[in-house]
Amino acid sequence: MKIAVLGGDGFCGWPASLHLSDLGHDVLVVDNLSRRRIDEELGASSLTPIVSPQERVAAWQEVSGRTITFVELDVAQDYDGLVDLLLAQRPDAVVHFAEQRAAPYSMKSPAHKRYTVDNNVNATHNLLAALVETGLDAHLVHLGTMGVYGYGTAGMKIPEGYLPVQVVTHEGEQVEQEILYPTNPGSVYHLTKCLDQQLFAYYAKNDRLRITDLHQGIVWGTHTDQTARDERLVNRFDYDGDYGTVLNRFLMQAAVGYPLTVHGTGGQTRAFIHIRDMVRCVQIALENPPARGDKVKIFNQMTQTHRVRDLAELVAGLSGATVEMVPNPRHEAAENDLHVRNDTFLDLGLEPTFLEEGLLLEVEEVARRYAHRADLEKIPCTSVWTAEQRPGVPSRHPQPVAGG
Amino acid sequence: MKIAVLGGDGFCGWPASLHLSDLGHDVLVVDNLSRRRIDEELGASSLTPIVSPQERVAAWQEVSGRTITFVELDVAQDYDGLVDLLLAQRPDAVVHFAEQRAAPYSMKSPAHKRYTVDNNVNATHNLLAALVETGLDAHLVHLGTMGVYGYGTAGMKIPEGYLPVQVVTHEGEQVEQEILYPTNPGSVYHLTKCLDQQLFAYYAKNDRLRITDLHQGIVWGTHTDQTARDERLVNRFDYDGDYGTVLNRFLMQAAVGYPLTVHGTGGQTRAFIHIRDMVRCVQIALENPPARGDKVKIFNQMTQTHRVRDLAELVAGLSGATVEMVPNPRHEAAENDLHVRNDTFLDLGLEPTFLEEGLLLEVEEVARRYAHRADLEKIPCTSVWTAEQRPGVPSRHPQPVAGG
Repeated sequence: MKIAVLGGDGFCGWPASLHLSDLGHDVLVVDNLSRRRIDEELGASSLTPIVSPQERVAAWQEVSGRTITFVELDVAQDYDGLVDLLLAQRPDAVVHFAEQRAAPYSMKSPAHKRYTVDNNVNATHNLLAALVETGLDAHLVHLGTMGVYGYGTAGMKIPEGYLPVQVVTHEGEQVEQEILYPTNPGSVYHLTKCLDQQLFAYYAKNDRLRITDLHQGIVWGTHTDQTARDERLVNRFDYDGDYGTVLNRFLMQAAVGYPLTVHGTGGQTRAFIHIRDMVRCVQIALENPPARGDKVKIFNQMTQTHRVRDLAELVAGLSGATVEMVPNPRHEAAENDLHVRNDTFLDLGLEPTFLEEGLLLEVEEVARRYAHRADLEKIPCTSVWTAEQRPGVPSRHPQPVAGG
Repeated sequence: MKIAVLGGDGFCGWPASLHLSDLGHDVLVVDNLSRRRIDEELGASSLTPIVSPQERVAAWQEVSGRTITFVELDVAQDYDGLVDLLLAQRPDAVVHFAEQRAAPYSMKSPAHKRYTVDNNVNATHNLLAALVETGLDAHLVHLGTMGVYGYGTAGMKIPEGYLPVQVVTHEGEQVEQEILYPTNPGSVYHLTKCLDQQLFAYYAKNDRLRITDLHQGIVWGTHTDQTARDERLVNRFDYDGDYGTVLNRFLMQAAVGYPLTVHGTGGQTRAFIHIRDMVRCVQIALENPPARGDKVKIFNQMTQTHRVRDLAELVAGLSGATVEMVPNPRHEAAENDLHVRNDTFLDLGLEPTFLEEGLLLEVEEVARRYAHRADLEKIPCTSVWTAEQRPGVPSRHPQPVAGG
């Protein structure tokens, strides 16, 4: 099928585009290159040496014989361009990764909060309005986050998007209703994914758009079968305090011989998924679309949960690094349990890559291999979550900090 | 106290500003005059002859001896201007009416959908970010809508914002949790108020902002004690297919001798409140702020529910008009029950104005008095709710249509 991948130059978008192209689909990468501009803003860059989108698709053509078309377009800003593109290309499916995706970046300043809300809400809403306007019955697959659920779940096993609840009627009768799982976002970034969820529910109901929302855990790993085929196809690896996830920063700290810094008690439990499983999940979602008129299909896209301190110990054990505890910049519970259903993907054939198997490869093939390219001053997370915390901002020097 | 009223030139904002000024508060009206520009776009205007904001505040000074300051500012577009204003004025409270507020307008075209989402989300989020950035502990009172609840409520009596539900834990235990009432918006406009609700919940939790959200029914009535004091203080009265509410369009149709047109079966039940009660509710909300760290305080701001066909019969009975049924442009249930709690305002002393008492005055003092100013071609609602409905758009001629 023909698939437009919005945000197809990014960390998840690029390997997903290659995977879909490799499967034989006709892939169109649409990206405004905002993530590359943010690299410039932050003075940080991918640990792995990524080439331009034009060089990427040319390399893929050379290696695979398959064509990916790259279009530079800002879906949040250029609605008319988006409509024209959809009408010209008439994709069967649109995979929507085109959002600002870092929680710490979304909390850096009022301008960053405002950019994240404005960009993410308008990107999603423009796409929905354009699908209605063009009358295309394209299946929309969106990358959401496990973070919409929040992490204080009263001991519930988190269902896939919808929660059955008992409510009391006007006449005093108890009836069961299914509701969207109540959201509890932990950052402005996560908040925008909650807003997306409301937009999707409305457009699925009112305009019968076919939508799948993937509530994804923290992605780890760098290479997929496709990105590993040529160094020009390499995926980005972010280790900075804004875009680097907890695991990537641990890996970098280990690779350069720093202690692994854990925020708070490290008792925060998070959901994870390997990038190879992420691309498979996107494929599975595309192969199993909802019918027209169905509610939004929601999958939990994660395979394992881990406590941050256990991750640190795992990486420390593999690499010989030590672990150090520092204050937590986030406004969150120090310790939480997390139980998540992910039956849908498992039932549809996903075979998870577990942390215990893949982590050593990351230490050796990514973190150590490219360690010479690292700017160690970029590892600390300097965003603070609330105004009250501002006086206690962790210093950028001399001690790198990393966390959840 | 010093109160900034954002959207203070609008249908609810202006009478609320006058009421608060009359009570002795120091009122600052902030408005981008978008509603007046939309009048120009639609070629429609208020039935009542409203004067410029400058003339309005000058007339109020003359009549009452009290000063209202008017500032032209777009809070959705000019964040820096908003921050500067807050720092210069340091209001104790901010009443936020600064949103596009018509459901049919929000559904007119993709551009209108996009404007409504972009404007409303950014207006609200800019205000929240600015309150955090400035560190002002101003109480934010927002005008929301009963429409966030949706109208298919499984026989539940709609609580004030929060719903206690029973959920089953990981260990199989049933526990009670209080959640935000699950939203079910009926238009893009209503959707934006659901998005607002998520923004408020997040900022109340993360930044301990003090926020009250007023889930308001359909406002009817034109005059308050203050707007009635001088014709230059008169409030707007919208009867067009986009901004005119069902009741106002019935009143206009009655005043000019047209049949009252009811959409569908007229079995849609809606919640209503008189504009005099609305201004009192805003006052009561301001006098009863949440404490810092509290969850968002949510009041249901309505006093009565009515079926649309009963309203039509009420107006027909008062005016001698006839009632006619036409197809419904909205994607909604033909018939619904609606039971709403509004205990908080009643407990705090609100004495409702009921439709049966106030309606005749509206027929005589507004609709008939200004009927010569009406453009009858503007009464039909031509927005359609879904792409599927487009072929069946009600014609603008020759038959005016009006509805819920």
